[in-house]
Amino acid sequence: MRHLLGLYGVSADDIRAILDEANRFLSALQQSPPQTFNTLSGKTIALCFFENSTRTRISFDLAARRLGASTVNFTALTSSLQKGETLLDTIANLEAMNLDAFVIRHSDSGAAHVVAKRSKLPVINAGDGAHEHPTQALLDMLTLRNTFGSLSGLRVLIMGDILHSRVARSNIFGLRTMGAHVSLCAPPTLLPANIDEFGVTLYTNLERAVQSCDAAIVLRLQLERETAGFIPSLREYTRFFSLTEEVLSKRDKKLFVLHPGPMNREVEISSAVADSRQSLILEQVTSGVAVRMAVLQTLLAN
Amino acid sequence: MRHLLGLYGVSADDIRAILDEANRFLSALQQSPPQTFNTLSGKTIALCFFENSTRTRISFDLAARRLGASTVNFTALTSSLQKGETLLDTIANLEAMNLDAFVIRHSDSGAAHVVAKRSKLPVINAGDGAHEHPTQALLDMLTLRNTFGSLSGLRVLIMGDILHSRVARSNIFGLRTMGAHVSLCAPPTLLPANIDEFGVTLYTNLERAVQSCDAAIVLRLQLERETAGFIPSLREYTRFFSLTEEVLSKRDKKLFVLHPGPMNREVEISSAVADSRQSLILEQVTSGVAVRMAVLQTLLAN
Amino acid sequence: MRHLLGLYGVSADDIRAILDEANRFLSALQQSPPQTFNTLSGKTIALCFFENSTRTRISFDLAARRLGASTVNFTALTSSLQKGETLLDTIANLEAMNLDAFVIRHSDSGAAHVVAKRSKLPVINAGDGAHEHPTQALLDMLTLRNTFGSLSGLRVLIMGDILHSRVARSNIFGLRTMGAHVSLCAPPTLLPANIDEFGVTLYTNLERAVQSCDAAIVLRLQLERETAGFIPSLREYTRFFSLTEEVLSKRDKKLFVLHPGPMNREVEISSAVADSRQSLILEQVTSGVAVRMAVLQTLLAN
Repeated sequence: MRHLLGLYGVSADDIRAILDEANRFLSALQQSPPQTFNTLSGKTIALCFFENSTRTRISFDLAARRLGASTVNFTALTSSLQKGETLLDTIANLEAMNLDAFVIRHSDSGAAHVVAKRSKLPVINAGDGAHEHPTQALLDMLTLRNTFGSLSGLRVLIMGDILHSRVARSNIFGLRTMGAHVSLCAPPTLLPANIDEFGVTLYTNLERAVQSCDAAIVLRLQLERETAGFIPSLREYTRFFSLTEEVLSKRDKKLFVLHPGPMNREVEISSAVADSRQSLILEQVTSGVAVRMAVLQTLLAN
Repeated sequence: MRHLLGLYGVSADDIRAILDEANRFLSALQQSPPQTFNTLSGKTIALCFFENSTRTRISFDLAARRLGASTVNFTALTSSLQKGETLLDTIANLEAMNLDAFVIRHSDSGAAHVVAKRSKLPVINAGDGAHEHPTQALLDMLTLRNTFGSLSGLRVLIMGDILHSRVARSNIFGLRTMGAHVSLCAPPTLLPANIDEFGVTLYTNLERAVQSCDAAIVLRLQLERETAGFIPSLREYTRFFSLTEEVLSKRDKKLFVLHPGPMNREVEISSAVADSRQSLILEQVTSGVAVRMAVLQTLLAN
Repeated sequence: MRHLLGLYGVSADDIRAILDEANRFLSALQQSPPQTFNTLSGKTIALCFFENSTRTRISFDLAARRLGASTVNFTALTSSLQKGETLLDTIANLEAMNLDAFVIRHSDSGAAHVVAKRSKLPVINAGDGAHEHPTQALLDMLTLRNTFGSLSGLRVLIMGDILHSRVARSNIFGLRTMGAHVSLCAPPTLLPANIDEFGVTLYTNLERAVQSCDAAIVLRLQLERETAGFIPSLREYTRFFSLTEEVLSKRDKKLFVLHPGPMNREVEISSAVADSRQSLILEQVTSGVAVRMAVLQTLLAN
């Protein structure tokens, strides 16, 4: 494993190794005082966020520093990209400064792949367009595995704007590789055209969808981005596709709920559900740092 | 003491303990080479600046790092708050990443209190709306104590836009607790409605006000914010409420002058006064790092 | 040497000492694992970028940290300068926080000199207006010296927008001090009025200019800044002043090519030339970190 560009095609063994390693970091961080590591001491990791995401950047930054590495931040807003430089020239320049790895968030699908093809350094995709966001899916899988004991046979519903969601795509690939059953629930306009190829069960009725799963990943409705034109109105979307206590009351067993954040409360998820005991949302965030430590450690140690 | 949200209600003993600790750091930093500390080694402090303030952020950042802690910067401009996330969700997320304290600057009065109520971690208010800015008042008090030997009986004038000033409020609470006499000088439109409850002497004539004090804290006229509508014109304000050499020439003894910065030279203070030997403005900045070290040390060590 | 404000008037001995020191750092960084340094441990360097330049900032940041120093970033976009504070007040404030050096990038020619005149701390000019950018010229000279063995007698062509280029000015001063011959090639509108005083050879025909030099420094056409009004059209500029393989094919020997970045590919330089074996562009970037380490070490150690 040289890069982590997506979960498509990554083997169950590789995923399991990362999740196992992440769990070791998870326990170490929760000791008091937290156990520290210096396995990446002397390494410098470039956090290249060509799209805003303070929380993902902080999560990678903490992960790197908790392994003893240092980080440099390259952000698009204040960068030479504004002066017309190409992405590959930016990357080549940073590489020439003797850095050790790239973490890349970019609004173009495939950006991390393009960089990986041209760089000698390990590249971690921190989200590219509507394509993949592998560390988010890995942290969802770690949270689910730690809650249920195993991913094999687990029934996971992903609900919301599947079409524009890199989180959904990475989760579908990863969860299916680990033997989970994935179902989707969304209005037909928010499903990708080639959804048949994904090996998932489709629902357009949310009450029916929640009957047959063990956990639900609620996607963020990206109000600030593309989603707006794809739904009749926010009100109608919320009426039929919001995960509320009313919807959950139709089930006997409790349903564990995940959300990649940031949440739109009372849009795709009700506050009551987000703050309930069934919510794994903050466990996801904690798992995120551990998963990113495991990925950095896997790609960079030695 | 779990949080530092304001100086209202903080005891003289607690204030004295922080100022004493700050003085120890002040001497340590001025040794050559400066003495270093590792009392907060392994801790990570989130600097959450939802309002711009590079200098206060740098002061806290240096304070944290000089105690061996690391910092993460969460700034509103590039954050998930732009995507509609609530303040409390942002804080809960950062907390789930196993951080150790929050330093919060926010344009809403009470923001730090709201966070402190919901967070398990120590919260330091780095300025909330027109409410409090306790570390600024503590550094003013440290500067005054180091200049005059004691705060007890000291006569301190605060002049300018009291109404919108969190610096004024924190200083009034803190200075009075320590036995100082506080007087205010401002146009009536820039005084809070409940000023009677503050236990201060009021002046609207600056020449008279400077006759009866030992030191003056000149507030910044916040031209970029609310103040504009409250004064007839900048010219008139400057004519009657600017601290100039002419005003000071009416006194016999010299008057020590403080300003929280950034200054509007020739608006609320003349350059001649700001750069005079009576000016403690740069001592304030130096005291600021030491005070913030003392606060972090008090809240976080063991 | 207390400051590095420009290369005008800096002696050959001082330049040689910095380049020699930079070469030592260059080898140390290229060992595996890279050799680390702690000569500036405990020092804090303020990176004050009043003009955007992520790459130069990252280069200085890495240089400082690889010597064991820490850094604080002061950027204009989020600073008290927006609130009307003067540059000198900003600097005085940072100095009062017990920092150890200033690295200053500013859009005004002379800004670093003004700061150096008022500050007790070492000041490094990281680019001021159209005046000087000494570390860029030093890294160009290090790259050329490492390619050709010596700068003495070397014939260096600088081509493009000389008028607005601090890179050109610093290179002319530094290269001539080290015994190199400098020629310039630009449209007459992009040459400074006092060009006769620089001791350089002038060309307006690029094919002729490339016949009589060993290396060419291609300047960036600053499309986002002043240049636009000085050329008839981008198309005409590119036709006559772009360094392309066609132009180079008129020479017998290969021409080594430098560019300070970020490049406008197919404007001032063709992609084929930028990516050719004659291109030293990425060597420049690597040399940049080493040169900045050498400068920081020279000004700050002991």
